[in-house]
Amino acid sequence: MTDAPATDELTPPVRTLMGPGPSDVHPRVLRAMGTPLVGHLDPAFLDVMDEVQELLRYAFRTDNQWTLPISGTGSAAMEAAFANLVEPGDTVLVPTNGYFGHRMASMAKRAGGTVVSVDAPWGEPLDPRDVEDAFETHQPEVFGFVHAETSTGVRQPAVPELTGIAKAHDAFVIADTVTSLGGVELRVDEWDIDVAYSGAQKCLSCPPGASPITLSDRAMDRVLARETPVRSWYLDLSLLEGYWGDNRSYHHTAPVTNVYALREALRLVAEEGIERRWERHRRVARTLVSGLAELGLERYAAEEYWLPSLNTVRVPNGVDDTALIEQLLSEYGIEIAAGLGDLAGEVFRIGCMGHSARPANVHHLLAALEETLETHRS
Amino acid sequence: MTDAPATDELTPPVRTLMGPGPSDVHPRVLRAMGTPLVGHLDPAFLDVMDEVQELLRYAFRTDNQWTLPISGTGSAAMEAAFANLVEPGDTVLVPTNGYFGHRMASMAKRAGGTVVSVDAPWGEPLDPRDVEDAFETHQPEVFGFVHAETSTGVRQPAVPELTGIAKAHDAFVIADTVTSLGGVELRVDEWDIDVAYSGAQKCLSCPPGASPITLSDRAMDRVLARETPVRSWYLDLSLLEGYWGDNRSYHHTAPVTNVYALREALRLVAEEGIERRWERHRRVARTLVSGLAELGLERYAAEEYWLPSLNTVRVPNGVDDTALIEQLLSEYGIEIAAGLGDLAGEVFRIGCMGHSARPANVHHLLAALEETLETHRS
Repeated sequence: MTDAPATDELTPPVRTLMGPGPSDVHPRVLRAMGTPLVGHLDPAFLDVMDEVQELLRYAFRTDNQWTLPISGTGSAAMEAAFANLVEPGDTVLVPTNGYFGHRMASMAKRAGGTVVSVDAPWGEPLDPRDVEDAFETHQPEVFGFVHAETSTGVRQPAVPELTGIAKAHDAFVIADTVTSLGGVELRVDEWDIDVAYSGAQKCLSCPPGASPITLSDRAMDRVLARETPVRSWYLDLSLLEGYWGDNRSYHHTAPVTNVYALREALRLVAEEGIERRWERHRRVARTLVSGLAELGLERYAAEEYWLPSLNTVRVPNGVDDTALIEQLLSEYGIEIAAGLGDLAGEVFRIGCMGHSARPANVHHLLAALEETLETHRS
Repeated sequence: MTDAPATDELTPPVRTLMGPGPSDVHPRVLRAMGTPLVGHLDPAFLDVMDEVQELLRYAFRTDNQWTLPISGTGSAAMEAAFANLVEPGDTVLVPTNGYFGHRMASMAKRAGGTVVSVDAPWGEPLDPRDVEDAFETHQPEVFGFVHAETSTGVRQPAVPELTGIAKAHDAFVIADTVTSLGGVELRVDEWDIDVAYSGAQKCLSCPPGASPITLSDRAMDRVLARETPVRSWYLDLSLLEGYWGDNRSYHHTAPVTNVYALREALRLVAEEGIERRWERHRRVARTLVSGLAELGLERYAAEEYWLPSLNTVRVPNGVDDTALIEQLLSEYGIEIAAGLGDLAGEVFRIGCMGHSARPANVHHLLAALEETLETHRS
């Protein structure tokens, strides 16, 4: 048995976070994290919950009553969506054009669903005609798509076309908005999305730990009418309804501090204005991709699918991506990321999210990349 | 669609947290929460992960390799235990002597298990003879018990007797140590517990959001040899092994800040010394229960099962428990809690955990209770 370990003071290095998340956290949000706690059933906390729900509705562009943070990181909100919407025997249609479509498949299977797919190559969005064909062939009950693919840097355009097809087939639509909420145009109600989930640590620039989800009444009715219990007690929205709804009854202890932080991060969204925030992401990311092009770094995702919050560029011939990423981190304190899944070794992934979507970060990264690339080209 | 909501600065009231958790958070832990983030795959964070694992082993009194925080609150760690250990068709033995045994049953069922129970009344611990009988009758694969029942204030004594029975029947033991880890004697290895889980916001006095779990090699072997996938992707320990084990491969984005905070909370445990910390909880809680007795508040749980971290006393005749709790909160800023489940309206639940287990808190509460009770007795 170990003796008491001697552990030093927490002194992490200072980083500039330009990877796929977490992004740099605004000082006001960090300060909120240091706020002393009240209990999760304290009347003062119930007010905070109401405020967070209202602020989330604003960010999601929805009037959905069932809009709340899930007590975990983005993947917990993702699993909450699939675990609640999918019952054993349901057919679930998911995309193949990125890492997170595969994760959808894994979660849908674990919920008891039969998974079918609509194909598109990595790096391209779904084509509505293929979605229509897949619906005709498989008649799925649930259709998941990724609005902002963090693995490829592709934004799914034509969302209303996709949801229109699903509605014509009486199916439910789940949208992965992890890397779009608060950074890229997203209109849950206008686009007729049934369920959207996200993370805190991307375009909201909040530490991960409380992750937004929103469900239409129609989707929540489906959850409440399930024939079998949700396979996760922790993520069961019919139980969470008791806490986030009118009853305020105990389900689990909410991550009070993460909810404080999310509130402050969402206040910053509301102060800036959601549409101006989308525009800022486009503007700052435009500077980034222009600068990357000047450095000879070729964009991976086409302009029409460009995802300002997550920019993928090809690893140049002769450059060791891992070594370059390590050098940026060790010499400049800048985090960017390598490719994931099919794109491992093929691309760099450069985030431009929330508080990281600032000229200061972009200028620093571009200058550091220019210096670093010189030493790496063979 | 809502306009941008106008939300004020976050200014929660200052509370003295003497309920069933969260407890008061130490200023050093709050400061850790305000630390700027590094990425969840940053080499600096991988070091923090190693440190947290080592500190958790110390607090759990275990050498278990598989000792890590789950990315959610205590109920997420609880579900991780049951979802991973239980396969469809397994028989799972759970207790009936408190609220959290019922939650175990719900989680085990959702994992596909057949639930059987060992009975004891609320307010009493399990009798090893009853456990033995239940094993003979049901031959369960998994046995869950609650070491420290937050709903009743009962500590389960004779843990090695219980685990001995389970081992003789080749079963796996899951211990709920949510309200004991870091506050009440707990020896995972010496007591031969296969899986123990806990929360951060009880005796560790850390904000909720990253919750300790530890598994023996034998238990982890069972998880890795499952015939069916764990029904939760987010809580699947065979996938989390990739991140917390040697590979350090991405599974989900860890709640970096909650891990920072847990590290600092565990540093405080190590500095104090785990056994001295148990002793402090007993000493301070002894002052509390003596003072409560002087106020005429009768203890609910017997002395031999006393749980220093969570003290239950009967609601005196003629006292409206809800009104008294509200008055303590509004006039003194003190949080205590009402009874839960079968004990709703019957008891008060008064925590004495971690940084809240201090004479200052106890003196404040006793004086406030004395004043408040006078106005409430009919």
